[in-house]
Amino acid sequence: MADMLALTEPLVVGVDFGTLSGRAVVVRVRDGAELGSAVFEYPHAVVEDALHGRQLPPDWALQVPSDYVDVLRNAVPNALEAAGVSGENVIGIGTDFTACTMIPVTADGTPLCELTEFHAEPHAYVKLWKHHAAQGQADRITDLARIRGEKWLARYGGLISSEWEFAKGLQILEEAPEVYAAMWRFVEAADWIVWQLTGNYVRNACTAGYKGIHQDGAYPSADYLRELNPRFERFVTDKLAHPLGQLGDAAGRLTAEAAAWTGLPAGIAVSVGNVDAHVTAPAAQAVEPGQLVAIMGTSTCHVMNGAELREVPGMCGVVEGGIVPGLWGYEAGQSGVGDIFGWFVDHGVPPEYHDRARELGVSVHELLTGLAAQQEVGEHGLIALDWHSGNRSVLVDHELSGLVVGQTLATRAEDTYRALLEATAFGTRVIVDTFIDAQVPVTEFVVAGGLIRNPLLMQIYADVLDMPLSVIGSSNGPALGSAIHAAVAAGAYPDIRAAAAAMGSVERDVYLPIPANVAGYEELFTEYLTLHDYFGRGVNEVMRRLKERRRNARKGRDQ
Amino acid sequence: MADMLALTEPLVVGVDFGTLSGRAVVVRVRDGAELGSAVFEYPHAVVEDALHGRQLPPDWALQVPSDYVDVLRNAVPNALEAAGVSGENVIGIGTDFTACTMIPVTADGTPLCELTEFHAEPHAYVKLWKHHAAQGQADRITDLARIRGEKWLARYGGLISSEWEFAKGLQILEEAPEVYAAMWRFVEAADWIVWQLTGNYVRNACTAGYKGIHQDGAYPSADYLRELNPRFERFVTDKLAHPLGQLGDAAGRLTAEAAAWTGLPAGIAVSVGNVDAHVTAPAAQAVEPGQLVAIMGTSTCHVMNGAELREVPGMCGVVEGGIVPGLWGYEAGQSGVGDIFGWFVDHGVPPEYHDRARELGVSVHELLTGLAAQQEVGEHGLIALDWHSGNRSVLVDHELSGLVVGQTLATRAEDTYRALLEATAFGTRVIVDTFIDAQVPVTEFVVAGGLIRNPLLMQIYADVLDMPLSVIGSSNGPALGSAIHAAVAAGAYPDIRAAAAAMGSVERDVYLPIPANVAGYEELFTEYLTLHDYFGRGVNEVMRRLKERRRNARKGRDQ
Repeated sequence: MADMLALTEPLVVGVDFGTLSGRAVVVRVRDGAELGSAVFEYPHAVVEDALHGRQLPPDWALQVPSDYVDVLRNAVPNALEAAGVSGENVIGIGTDFTACTMIPVTADGTPLCELTEFHAEPHAYVKLWKHHAAQGQADRITDLARIRGEKWLARYGGLISSEWEFAKGLQILEEAPEVYAAMWRFVEAADWIVWQLTGNYVRNACTAGYKGIHQDGAYPSADYLRELNPRFERFVTDKLAHPLGQLGDAAGRLTAEAAAWTGLPAGIAVSVGNVDAHVTAPAAQAVEPGQLVAIMGTSTCHVMNGAELREVPGMCGVVEGGIVPGLWGYEAGQSGVGDIFGWFVDHGVPPEYHDRARELGVSVHELLTGLAAQQEVGEHGLIALDWHSGNRSVLVDHELSGLVVGQTLATRAEDTYRALLEATAFGTRVIVDTFIDAQVPVTEFVVAGGLIRNPLLMQIYADVLDMPLSVIGSSNGPALGSAIHAAVAAGAYPDIRAAAAAMGSVERDVYLPIPANVAGYEELFTEYLTLHDYFGRGVNEVMRRLKERRRNARKGRDQ
Repeated sequence: MADMLALTEPLVVGVDFGTLSGRAVVVRVRDGAELGSAVFEYPHAVVEDALHGRQLPPDWALQVPSDYVDVLRNAVPNALEAAGVSGENVIGIGTDFTACTMIPVTADGTPLCELTEFHAEPHAYVKLWKHHAAQGQADRITDLARIRGEKWLARYGGLISSEWEFAKGLQILEEAPEVYAAMWRFVEAADWIVWQLTGNYVRNACTAGYKGIHQDGAYPSADYLRELNPRFERFVTDKLAHPLGQLGDAAGRLTAEAAAWTGLPAGIAVSVGNVDAHVTAPAAQAVEPGQLVAIMGTSTCHVMNGAELREVPGMCGVVEGGIVPGLWGYEAGQSGVGDIFGWFVDHGVPPEYHDRARELGVSVHELLTGLAAQQEVGEHGLIALDWHSGNRSVLVDHELSGLVVGQTLATRAEDTYRALLEATAFGTRVIVDTFIDAQVPVTEFVVAGGLIRNPLLMQIYADVLDMPLSVIGSSNGPALGSAIHAAVAAGAYPDIRAAAAAMGSVERDVYLPIPANVAGYEELFTEYLTLHDYFGRGVNEVMRRLKERRRNARKGRDQ
């Protein structure tokens, strides 16, 4: 709740567009205090099964762009109301988005799906980040880049994801050429929402780099694109290229229309678009080189600035100004973390645990965590590999899968649960060690995201990494980060660094390594690494073959 | 039920002494028809936690010998009653027992635990087969034999089990010397029960060979025993050695006392003692070289005759006359099969499956089997190793453990269940291939035991082995086998072979390999073998280290 002073003080609004909802937070410019927030769930959520009664193929994930505008109309005014303030003291608004989430639009920014002729066409809708149906295109994009020796490939750990702009664009060209022809630009949702607020299309440097393969001032060449598909030759020039905006800059001023939606004053600063993970760094006061922020949720995204460009094997991307202008922004990731724990709770835990959790009034996660916390390191006798959704960093291989070794008739659910927690910590350790080995120092480990609520998980990470853990002070990290960008765009601070120092929040040394555990985990990590390399680096490609066989078996059955 | 003819026809009785109960079956000599049966549960079951209020150490498993006599007093008369016959037409009785189950006795066969002075002494009781507290002794027995190059070691796959006679005897010597001094002989329960029936102590050739290290007419030397422990030097001569009886021979005649217990005529033939697994072979008409009988329950025991002695790597034992006189009896084993499936159902299956099984009125096993049966080979994308209780054959390593590879967020309980069924089939395939590679032909695969009730499991075995499956006709295989031995001992047949042909029963070609599945499993078996050798043959000894760490962690916690 706002104190009286806040009512006359400058405020900013940050809006975080997630996978299922958008959240607006009203933030005091002086100190980053969060005065109020509100969430608005997307009415259409994620369209995965069918669109207007028409069945979608596997791996599709669409959204409806008007849902995003509804967040502006609802969550922002509700956040102001929750904060007990009117909009008049708000001097800026910032936004962040899932990425790579792409919208095909006309020259005035109208999504093609809003045109009558394309209303029933799936390719005219928003392709959400987790639309994975362009894998075939992505494979060709990567393979051709490797064959041609495209130097940008190493900036992405040697693999261009099916989630990114080129794969999604090529899929439209090849599967719906009429949509491709009709789209004026293929726009990141992160930039489209800023366009709705300002009337200007400004392409943010973050997604242009991480998702749009913009490196050293250029996109992939027309020559490369032609070899991919002759009709794709002009993709960059016709559909993608557009002036970039640096993070923290103002993309423009709030239009009267957007002011009416939000209840904010027309003309205030709107910052350049952002990605949820990357904008969390200033919210956690982690904008200096070596401060790694792990946003831990269903998956984990690691973002960190570095003073110099290094090609770190298996990273997701390195982009100049990708987190803050003037530094190299490194991104790495673990494709499954919290979702592995959730899968295990849903599909591997017997009834007694569910009953007991219900009796105790706790979640099954909490029950298992409590039981697992009583164990010594190594007591369960298990080692797991955390690849149930493949491995993003550092192996960059979607065909990998999970593994548990060491089970006996005495193995219980809490044993496997703890082994899975540990496996994700070992996966993080591999990433941190890889950065360090590539001469990108990691000096601080800062945790954000929903999993900070699990104290056992946090302690395991501290022990496995042998580093103290810093924890973000806000539970609305991305929205707070967007508000910080808004404050910079509004001129309240000279740059993101200064704004982060005043408005971000982090608690240091929340979890300290326990020496006995560090020693135990050092040994177990050696075991993990041996299995990691055996299954992940081509010694035994059984995981790849099992997935291939699974696909063939399912195909055979469906015929 | 008996027809009228049966009432005037010769009958025999077979009694199978299991882990928790004894079962008597009344069988017609002419054709092996089972006319009636009865079960008697041991009143003291298995004594594992405490004896007379005194806590037992871990891994102990004792029994009370009077429970066995109570089986004779109850199950035999009840079986006669169930068959609708009096005992007068019964011409013989045969028995089989778990092994190696050992009783320390006085010279008249009285168990030491029945003496007042030893009533409270755990070492004076029956050490059940699954008493595993003599592991330290077993390790020394094996290690010394290896160092000294004892040639009998290879007959047991290079490992003497903690379950066997020497380990159990050495434990008594070292932990309870007064019991050791007081025992006249250390007797297999299989022979003790025959002693109770006949008044004669006859040592059966089967357990003497498989459990007593009796090979080529001799036991381990006094020289070897002295090196093990100077006070153990005369173990063979003082406690173990005794004239052997061949299988199918009469050990003696039923005493008046035993006739009164059982309701059978005094003076009828009592056959030499037997082991439950081995005596199942004649019940399944599988007494010729190459006919492998797999008795599939919580674990699997494989017994097969061979015409010649071969040293097959990793077998449990090869004994001349161990199954039928005149042939070499081979034994192999899988230390966990049904118990792995049971563990998974108890500890890895979420509530919905339990609820659904309840609604449908089926067991969770049946529900999972039904779901898994709908899958194509390889559709679950998993491979498992079936070593949750270690690996008996062919790796002979208790320190191995289970493994599942290939899990994704789409993995469901029926997937893992099927992968575990398959893993045990692959484990069987390794054993069969090892026999064949060692020039011990396997020409028929005959299944007995409780798991014959799972048709999916049976089909998987047929497909993985690429062999038709024969299935035993009796659900009381061991008791029928004992009855067959009784008929031979009574002179109704010239030998076990002839009796088995008349009285045993087997159905051939019950499950036939499905060519498409055979091809799929051939590929998956290759994957299994690669993992089998990687984890089981010393390339990566992670399983051993995990168990060691687990023990240390638990020790650390208990201190």
